[in-house]
Amino acid sequence: MHIAILTFDGFNELDSLIALGILNRIKQPGWRVSLAAPSETVTSMNGVKLHRQARLDEVEAFDAVLVGSGIKTREIAQDAGVMQLLARLDPARQLIGAQCSGTLLLAKVGLLDGIPGCTDLTTKPWVQEAGIEVLEQPFFARGNLATAGGCLASIYLAAWTLARLVGREAAAEALHYVAPVGEKEEYVARALGNIEPYL
Amino acid sequence: MHIAILTFDGFNELDSLIALGILNRIKQPGWRVSLAAPSETVTSMNGVKLHRQARLDEVEAFDAVLVGSGIKTREIAQDAGVMQLLARLDPARQLIGAQCSGTLLLAKVGLLDGIPGCTDLTTKPWVQEAGIEVLEQPFFARGNLATAGGCLASIYLAAWTLARLVGREAAAEALHYVAPVGEKEEYVARALGNIEPYL
Repeated sequence: MHIAILTFDGFNELDSLIALGILNRIKQPGWRVSLAAPSETVTSMNGVKLHRQARLDEVEAFDAVLVGSGIKTREIAQDAGVMQLLARLDPARQLIGAQCSGTLLLAKVGLLDGIPGCTDLTTKPWVQEAGIEVLEQPFFARGNLATAGGCLASIYLAAWTLARLVGREAAAEALHYVAPVGEKEEYVARALGNIEPYL
Repeated sequence: MHIAILTFDGFNELDSLIALGILNRIKQPGWRVSLAAPSETVTSMNGVKLHRQARLDEVEAFDAVLVGSGIKTREIAQDAGVMQLLARLDPARQLIGAQCSGTLLLAKVGLLDGIPGCTDLTTKPWVQEAGIEVLEQPFFARGNLATAGGCLASIYLAAWTLARLVGREAAAEALHYVAPVGEKEEYVARALGNIEPYL
């Protein structure tokens, strides 16, 4: 099972790395979580330079794909090479999620046609301009397609991915591990409450 | 104002990068947030290789230092070079915080003598063995020293740092930005509730 978190130049660290940390709580053979990028290294919106763990052109080989967010998403939406790769995503056989401005990329390749979505407050007008209804909530999914809005909603997107690929119990355990000491039950309950309607 | 997030090989992505993302919400001249590491690159507990933004041996020049967490902290506590650098930290003139297993490093250099601390459930026995009382709560601070336990308590450690260096309003704005859509007021209130007793 290979889950890719698509991470572009200008990426938001929370959106890519929170999902990566939570998804990596699963310890089972063949479980792989990768930051996938179009270039060998990418640099975040705050100057953090990191190395990709998978190539973006492997996109059809991933079992699940989470599209990260960042400050250059509108430029990426104009990048024909990247958008042609994203157009190969197939919700019939892949779990597909997007975080914040990542929702704009899914909208641009037509994956959200007729499906409402979540995004951050800054990206909201661009997603609406792409013809997608934007919801005032942190998480929404229909079938194999999910979107999340607000950096820390990446917790819910990761939990949904785990619940779908492994099970609710695995999602709850991963959430329990990362939650603050003394608030773990409350955090797990809130996260599961956000994804349960879509499982 | 230069804030360093100490990040070592085997680091937990959430613990270093959530703080970095939140602290970088401040846009004012001279405000700088850096991942500081002992080597040019460090690789996380899940294989994410990134480049440092500051050297660890600049430790006395930082206005604030947050010690990140990871799976190799007990080895780092045996590294005389690193521990000699950490021993130069001075809570009389620097804000000092630690996240999860980072608390063990502050304990080992004597900075927590007589002060209770927070840490994650895995590190708890090692911090107790170092003679420090471990609290069943996500965040605690006394004066210029703060500790947090559980990856997502990094939100509280970052908020405390902002509240101390800039002000409560700046902390609230940064939290509001990163919080999930539809849950922003609740997130801000919970985070501020955790740090208010120590401001």
